[in-house]
Amino acid sequence: MKMIESQQNPKVKAWKKLLTKKGRDQTGLFIIEGFHLVEEALKEQHVVKEIMKTKNVEIPATWDVTDVPIVTVTNEIMKGICDTETPQGIASVCKQQNDHSTKYFRKFILVDRVQDPGNLGTIIRTADAAGIDAVILGAGTVDVYNAKTIRATQGSLFHLPILKGDLTTFIAQLKQRNIPIYGTSLTNGVSYKEVSPTESFAIIVGNEGNGVSQTLLQMTDKNLYIPLYGKAESLNVAIASSILMYHFVH
Amino acid sequence: MKMIESQQNPKVKAWKKLLTKKGRDQTGLFIIEGFHLVEEALKEQHVVKEIMKTKNVEIPATWDVTDVPIVTVTNEIMKGICDTETPQGIASVCKQQNDHSTKYFRKFILVDRVQDPGNLGTIIRTADAAGIDAVILGAGTVDVYNAKTIRATQGSLFHLPILKGDLTTFIAQLKQRNIPIYGTSLTNGVSYKEVSPTESFAIIVGNEGNGVSQTLLQMTDKNLYIPLYGKAESLNVAIASSILMYHFVH
Repeated sequence: MKMIESQQNPKVKAWKKLLTKKGRDQTGLFIIEGFHLVEEALKEQHVVKEIMKTKNVEIPATWDVTDVPIVTVTNEIMKGICDTETPQGIASVCKQQNDHSTKYFRKFILVDRVQDPGNLGTIIRTADAAGIDAVILGAGTVDVYNAKTIRATQGSLFHLPILKGDLTTFIAQLKQRNIPIYGTSLTNGVSYKEVSPTESFAIIVGNEGNGVSQTLLQMTDKNLYIPLYGKAESLNVAIASSILMYHFVH
Repeated sequence: MKMIESQQNPKVKAWKKLLTKKGRDQTGLFIIEGFHLVEEALKEQHVVKEIMKTKNVEIPATWDVTDVPIVTVTNEIMKGICDTETPQGIASVCKQQNDHSTKYFRKFILVDRVQDPGNLGTIIRTADAAGIDAVILGAGTVDVYNAKTIRATQGSLFHLPILKGDLTTFIAQLKQRNIPIYGTSLTNGVSYKEVSPTESFAIIVGNEGNGVSQTLLQMTDKNLYIPLYGKAESLNVAIASSILMYHFVH
């Protein structure tokens, strides 16, 4: 197959649009790069739409790429669609997750306006590790399909349902199912160590500077804090999320 | 006082040397930037050696800067000594920590070759929060006085002793005091949830790719793993450290 060499090629233009949130939202697509992520994406059905590679990259023999178009591009084009400084020479266009019903899920983490891509990615990776059923992203949270977020998930964004929506609506639905809702707060509330793990739960974590919004904190069953024994004024939100998720799973 | 305007000024040259590990190692000094970090450093005795500020920055009235020289510099000079893209216009030269005796400490985290500054900074911040007595950095760990590490500590590097040295020597010393040593390992070992919190402990965490070295794992009392319930292959090292530290403190 012929190599794509021109930045003016319609495919290249379409890929570049996916580097912006607007372009991703309009198409429902996103780009991932590197061997590990493409491999993780290929394990899921119907996620990888197209693979882009440079000339000297070989597709590993263990990958099932039946029905996946593979396009060869120049190093310059690869660089232009990748976010890292030294791309591995392999990338792919993936389909964003569809909406999922949360009906059969019991373990949730709700994310309220987290801004840092690394934090969101790490929360998703840890949620996957902890066996959380679904991650729910409220309005104002950084885009999950941003290259930095994806990298921090280490592929976990392909492993569990990630939903977007209004958190007050989700909380109301979960409350109807008698799922305990735990907010997190630096000051008020009870120490998480005093709350026993339960079979179902929803933990809400919030913005790096301002925490979980007051509106949401007023809808919870309990608001939890993580004791600060030293002089640190707070914990990083991904760290706090992880301590709580691992406390509640058992 | 006269403003420093020339990049050739000996002070400016000396500050720039502190941007490299070599320069920091030779002088035992390092640079921090931003209001929060300088404020945290000033709370400790004899740490801040000199404050640099731009013309339009006012030293907050609540800061005790008795005996601390304050130097005004141009925006260009400030930019040249700061690592962030938009410096806040305030920085300071600080003294590195001296060696501490670990004799009276009981709760340790030992860091074996962690490479990412953000990970190390977050481990130190969380160690502070969790009431750990000292952080011990083994050879091959990223420099704690690197600007990115400092930023991730959020000031906690001023709150607790941070020692450097050979981890096998430290472990031997701690063993003589009957302090339980816990390695961490993805595969072998026992689930941390099966080990009860103790009054004293030393947790060893390791390199992002390779974990804790085999030599160290053979010196421990127990090696712990954190169960992975989902499809994630591992946890971020700062996340794993935090889950374990908060498990053991009580």
